[in-house]
Amino acid sequence: MSNSFGKIFKITTYGESHGVGIGVIIDGCPAGVEVDEVLLQAEMQRRKPGQSKITTQRKEEDEVEVLSGIFEGKTTGTPIALSIRNTNQKSKDYSHIKDSYRPSHADFTYQEKYGLRDYRGGGRSSARETAARVAAGAIAKMFLQKLDINIAAYVTQVGSLKLDKSYLEMDLKKAEENIVRCPDPEMAEKMIQHIDETRKNRDTIGGIVSCVIQGTPVGLGEPVFDKLHAVLGQAMLSINAVKGFEYGSGFEGVKMYGSEHNDRFETEDGKVKTATNHSGGIQGGISNGQDIYFNVAFKPIATIMNDQESIDKDGNKVTVKGKGRHDPCVVPRAVPIVEAMAAITIADFLLRAKTNKI
Amino acid sequence: MSNSFGKIFKITTYGESHGVGIGVIIDGCPAGVEVDEVLLQAEMQRRKPGQSKITTQRKEEDEVEVLSGIFEGKTTGTPIALSIRNTNQKSKDYSHIKDSYRPSHADFTYQEKYGLRDYRGGGRSSARETAARVAAGAIAKMFLQKLDINIAAYVTQVGSLKLDKSYLEMDLKKAEENIVRCPDPEMAEKMIQHIDETRKNRDTIGGIVSCVIQGTPVGLGEPVFDKLHAVLGQAMLSINAVKGFEYGSGFEGVKMYGSEHNDRFETEDGKVKTATNHSGGIQGGISNGQDIYFNVAFKPIATIMNDQESIDKDGNKVTVKGKGRHDPCVVPRAVPIVEAMAAITIADFLLRAKTNKI
Amino acid sequence: MSNSFGKIFKITTYGESHGVGIGVIIDGCPAGVEVDEVLLQAEMQRRKPGQSKITTQRKEEDEVEVLSGIFEGKTTGTPIALSIRNTNQKSKDYSHIKDSYRPSHADFTYQEKYGLRDYRGGGRSSARETAARVAAGAIAKMFLQKLDINIAAYVTQVGSLKLDKSYLEMDLKKAEENIVRCPDPEMAEKMIQHIDETRKNRDTIGGIVSCVIQGTPVGLGEPVFDKLHAVLGQAMLSINAVKGFEYGSGFEGVKMYGSEHNDRFETEDGKVKTATNHSGGIQGGISNGQDIYFNVAFKPIATIMNDQESIDKDGNKVTVKGKGRHDPCVVPRAVPIVEAMAAITIADFLLRAKTNKI
Amino acid sequence: MSNSFGKIFKITTYGESHGVGIGVIIDGCPAGVEVDEVLLQAEMQRRKPGQSKITTQRKEEDEVEVLSGIFEGKTTGTPIALSIRNTNQKSKDYSHIKDSYRPSHADFTYQEKYGLRDYRGGGRSSARETAARVAAGAIAKMFLQKLDINIAAYVTQVGSLKLDKSYLEMDLKKAEENIVRCPDPEMAEKMIQHIDETRKNRDTIGGIVSCVIQGTPVGLGEPVFDKLHAVLGQAMLSINAVKGFEYGSGFEGVKMYGSEHNDRFETEDGKVKTATNHSGGIQGGISNGQDIYFNVAFKPIATIMNDQESIDKDGNKVTVKGKGRHDPCVVPRAVPIVEAMAAITIADFLLRAKTNKI
Repeated sequence: MSNSFGKIFKITTYGESHGVGIGVIIDGCPAGVEVDEVLLQAEMQRRKPGQSKITTQRKEEDEVEVLSGIFEGKTTGTPIALSIRNTNQKSKDYSHIKDSYRPSHADFTYQEKYGLRDYRGGGRSSARETAARVAAGAIAKMFLQKLDINIAAYVTQVGSLKLDKSYLEMDLKKAEENIVRCPDPEMAEKMIQHIDETRKNRDTIGGIVSCVIQGTPVGLGEPVFDKLHAVLGQAMLSINAVKGFEYGSGFEGVKMYGSEHNDRFETEDGKVKTATNHSGGIQGGISNGQDIYFNVAFKPIATIMNDQESIDKDGNKVTVKGKGRHDPCVVPRAVPIVEAMAAITIADFLLRAKTNKI
Repeated sequence: MSNSFGKIFKITTYGESHGVGIGVIIDGCPAGVEVDEVLLQAEMQRRKPGQSKITTQRKEEDEVEVLSGIFEGKTTGTPIALSIRNTNQKSKDYSHIKDSYRPSHADFTYQEKYGLRDYRGGGRSSARETAARVAAGAIAKMFLQKLDINIAAYVTQVGSLKLDKSYLEMDLKKAEENIVRCPDPEMAEKMIQHIDETRKNRDTIGGIVSCVIQGTPVGLGEPVFDKLHAVLGQAMLSINAVKGFEYGSGFEGVKMYGSEHNDRFETEDGKVKTATNHSGGIQGGISNGQDIYFNVAFKPIATIMNDQESIDKDGNKVTVKGKGRHDPCVVPRAVPIVEAMAAITIADFLLRAKTNKI
Repeated sequence: MSNSFGKIFKITTYGESHGVGIGVIIDGCPAGVEVDEVLLQAEMQRRKPGQSKITTQRKEEDEVEVLSGIFEGKTTGTPIALSIRNTNQKSKDYSHIKDSYRPSHADFTYQEKYGLRDYRGGGRSSARETAARVAAGAIAKMFLQKLDINIAAYVTQVGSLKLDKSYLEMDLKKAEENIVRCPDPEMAEKMIQHIDETRKNRDTIGGIVSCVIQGTPVGLGEPVFDKLHAVLGQAMLSINAVKGFEYGSGFEGVKMYGSEHNDRFETEDGKVKTATNHSGGIQGGISNGQDIYFNVAFKPIATIMNDQESIDKDGNKVTVKGKGRHDPCVVPRAVPIVEAMAAITIADFLLRAKTNKI
Repeated sequence: MSNSFGKIFKITTYGESHGVGIGVIIDGCPAGVEVDEVLLQAEMQRRKPGQSKITTQRKEEDEVEVLSGIFEGKTTGTPIALSIRNTNQKSKDYSHIKDSYRPSHADFTYQEKYGLRDYRGGGRSSARETAARVAAGAIAKMFLQKLDINIAAYVTQVGSLKLDKSYLEMDLKKAEENIVRCPDPEMAEKMIQHIDETRKNRDTIGGIVSCVIQGTPVGLGEPVFDKLHAVLGQAMLSINAVKGFEYGSGFEGVKMYGSEHNDRFETEDGKVKTATNHSGGIQGGISNGQDIYFNVAFKPIATIMNDQESIDKDGNKVTVKGKGRHDPCVVPRAVPIVEAMAAITIADFLLRAKTNKI
């Protein structure tokens, strides 16, 4: 009941961190999308572990095998199954947590919910699951590209280091030029240093990923519960370690007066646009054709390399050792995941919008 | 495709601001919930317009008629239909916006999406729809009460006036003792004044509603896309005028180190608890039995009483007059709506959790 | 979880036989469908009780009130709520069955499933619920009419009286000219007599409704679980008293060889057609543009006017008296219900088909 | 939108006849079901091709690999992914039908629906997809076994050869003792001969599979659209080549009077039962604890070994050669598929029923 997302362009993921593998079925992708498997693999590289000194050192090639739904380079309208084998799982690394509840992890809640759990590397609760989302997101992106819709995510905060520039003032492509994925090179340097120090302290730190979606047509999103930003919000909040979501003026918008906040409509070359964009490209839950932008807050991930006190299944006090290979800060690798979930959400709403009128 | 929320405890709302009426069907409420129709009506009173000088002066009794699903004071397991007639709609108030696009309203996006729209009072995009949610939420609350789950929402910010106290330091019941619904009487007074001034300036202002859910069992929420906080996030973001959602440590948690942020497990009277609660009662998307708390950011609502420039359907410049009856600040009346959506979400997850194990 | 049907054009019904009323929400009807409320009411007349000597004598006007979703004569894309008040419920008629389980009724199963039940007139299990389907079906029909899709149901069997003519040999419009709704006037006469005799014997008898759908485009239906005929089958089997469904060659097709059964493709005026139509217009679960036809088997309804032995809630033997007002044969009034469910199914698949290709 | 079945115990299948492989994700299986992989593989053997002289000679081992969701021999509550590689696909066998539309196949409808198709062996429309259902059904069966629910399907008709015995008069286990899967040895012999002759004539023939479900608790099924028999009907009609479904008295019940058809309630050892079972174990759409039984009609499959006239994509006349390896009669191999779909349906309703009452 929980492992699917989307209503028409619908993904279902499976797999555990240290099982045979993970993967995803995309059901509802329209026929005729040209699939570039090189691009698909390139997206995987952006998320994969071990890509730099500030990410986990687990090595996974994350090679995607296409099992169905693509024929002669195009989607056929039938389910697209994408499979990724786990190759570098070191299960014995995790025997020490078989009966212990790591602080702020899902060990306790899974155990209570299901009565048993695959404790190896967090099992299903591991962020490894997001590799499947990136694979599905790559297909969604190929669909969006045809329609000239572009999605760009990037890092705007690490700990207290905050980039106070609008996306309009920067070249977002530069985000991919450094390992922290911040489009401002100077700030990027500071962030990298901060993460590296945190890593050396055997600790972790939080951060913010921002995202801009450009080129969406007017009319995506549904009036009430499936407002475009509500579903984008769920999509983002469903990513591991996310604690908050805001779009457009966001939490800061609270302080504004309506007379300041309202976006005046005007026309430009016969097209309706707004003079400002506090709405974040969404009005009444429906895209208005302006840029959609939002922020996603990530907490410091729970696995730290220092010892921590906790309890085991029977309530006994235990010391949880800092073992395994983990990210000191999740945001650099979260960038492609945010993009993937945004792409999947937009793809779904594009298809839903086809049924608005007779 | 858009007017339902929930997977087992599922609500579907209908109705426009100035049509015959609005309402909701609850499908999937278990049989045997005792329904107190007085309590149901009392919840409606908390949301209804015209309740104080700082809310809209539209008068609606919002009387709920139960059409089905309740027999001899108990739910029967069949759909519960709740109907609310519109009585005080003044449709002629809206003829001036028939062809105009009000700034930051949904007029433009609805028109483009559907090719036509019920322009009277915003039609389906009006926050009047939330009355149906409050009615459904009242039934959900009666279900939760049986299980000793309690939900309390209250106002913590209006404009820049921010209440910097934890919910643990306050008596939340006091929120209902003042018209702005802030549990701190002193701050409440300031907020009321601020809203009243804003109203006199024919303007509007934003605010934040906070919410605490106490008494939930361990195990609510699903591992991946339907994480408890992700669905709560969608629920809140689906409320009119909401721009952001954060839970637990939220956006502030970004600045913390893992070693600070992690919540140490311990036992108390044989029950597992955590020493701190940055997790906001949710770990790996699943409730851990601690308090769940979150913030919801509301923008200043778009309808202001001053004139505004805009365009009409044909792209001509027009002046939108500030007519109609509207709230200068949405948060006091949003409190019961936040509670309702929280109750519906928890009710749904309670039922979903019944199927976790054989 | 059970009171909705359809994935895009989605209906949710509510209401009990002897409660305040019944109704339906249609969510997902596209904007721009012209709604003729006279036609809507006319459909209700075809199903309503008391229309002839061979139907129940309960009098219900079944007047439909449109609560939302239609503005200036057109659907707006928002939920369409249709409400029908119960006016002639005689609840005291049913006090005698409060604790008894009527043979082959749902009294026992509801009681066990939910722990309580609205026993008045069968409550939710009453065929009265189908009035809401007919109302929703009328809207679906208006959508289909625009696309020149036509649906015609009619009676082909009552007890052992079977009409052995293909729909191609008859003028189906004649079905509406007699009270049993059989397009063959001679057979109709026999059927009416048979039903009338059965009624006089205080008994009931079964029958078959056949249905033809003409004018559907190629491409409706989904490859695997939601094959067009599989969902049509569910739709028909969900109607009260239905025991079987077959389409195209049906159960008789079992006896044929592939060489006889296969429908040869050919072209006519540049359009692909088949020489025969054992496929019933559906191949691989997808409409091929030929006529879709199917049969729906109805059992004799369970309420008979003679006394029957049974048990009560505590297992004591009781005699169930033949009281109330009921149909001696359900098929004449089932005709518009079959059409309604077919129309809703086709409407849903028309919308789903919009998302097949980029 | 089409490749999933079930609401809580939900399966999603993928894969084409001649692609890399096929498979299924089961989402919503409760944690704690003991999985016997030997039994799982044994079920696959019952469906696999090449098992006798009266089935297709395609050789597929249909080995199932468990990719996720099972840990230390038990389901974990997370998605169970089952993968089956295609090993014996002979794609060149199908180049002759790349542009031709085989009579009564899905070539034409897929091509029109999607604008392109994987023509190799029918692609997604091939009955090869049902192997994934059998794998999922095996897991469902293990869940049901715990609850002592038993499902038995068997062949009751081949062409005009009809077994006129009730399941109560036979030992259904004997069905597995012969290659046609008919529990009556004498009739089995005749059926085998009939199929073999048909095969020699390079033709195909239809048949009927009957099924009995014993041991279900009272209360499965939902009141309105998801009546137990309606969803069972969809499940069966979704199997390739199925043309009809009937349960309980079925099409024959049409001829009966209510006074004959009604099943009298009585008690036995304090348990409620019915004297007869024309209801087929389902009343008002909900199981009443008696045996559930139904029939599924299969047409003669479309692939015959004789040449057939048809057209190609451009409307030109072509002769379709009878190549490939196919079943002369589908029913022997359909038996485990019918059981699998029944098991999945019952598993889903068992979980749904957990939420009926508080």
